[in-house]
Amino acid sequence: MRELQHPAVADIDLGEVLFALADPVRRRLVARLDEGGECGTTQCAGEGMAASTASHHFKVLREAGVTCTRRLVSLRRQDLDDRFPGLLDAVLREERAAVRPLSW
Amino acid sequence: MRELQHPAVADIDLGEVLFALADPVRRRLVARLDEGGECGTTQCAGEGMAASTASHHFKVLREAGVTCTRRLVSLRRQDLDDRFPGLLDAVLREERAAVRPLSW
Repeated sequence: MRELQHPAVADIDLGEVLFALADPVRRRLVARLDEGGECGTTQCAGEGMAASTASHHFKVLREAGVTCTRRLVSLRRQDLDDRFPGLLDAVLREERAAVRPLSW
Repeated sequence: MRELQHPAVADIDLGEVLFALADPVRRRLVARLDEGGECGTTQCAGEGMAASTASHHFKVLREAGVTCTRRLVSLRRQDLDDRFPGLLDAVLREERAAVRPLSW
């Protein structure tokens, strides 16, 4: 998983912005974001668009400096408990009891 | 920007989960997520960890089926207005006035 690159404001290039906005699908995505604010990429693209297509368009928009993408992560607690009952509890119990330095 | 892959519950492999949890940094990330719920990757990793390091650990956790990562996207409205005043307004005005089929 590569880091997501966003150009600094001063580095946003007019040509790249215009190229990004030249595509009607991307213009629609931008209009949706302008109306609805921050949104999940899947939700913003809607059901009619293939995930790979949406992914491509959001990449072009982000690299041009039109949009900002951030990642949210969550624990699949229920899935893991269903699959391997007790495993995560055992690990986390020990993890919390461990005394370790706070720095990485 | 590649699509993020998450194994289905039935496909979560014990060996991969244990490998992911064998790393003390990843165990700490998992413990934080278990306590705090969904979190930005940067925020979860904290200031002490390099972005590339965090990115690697979240990739291992996600591919093992331990975590779920989703992307949120937002429009850099202020940045674009600062950089190219009036551009986005002009584009969006036309975009909203355009009559186009609703499907992609």
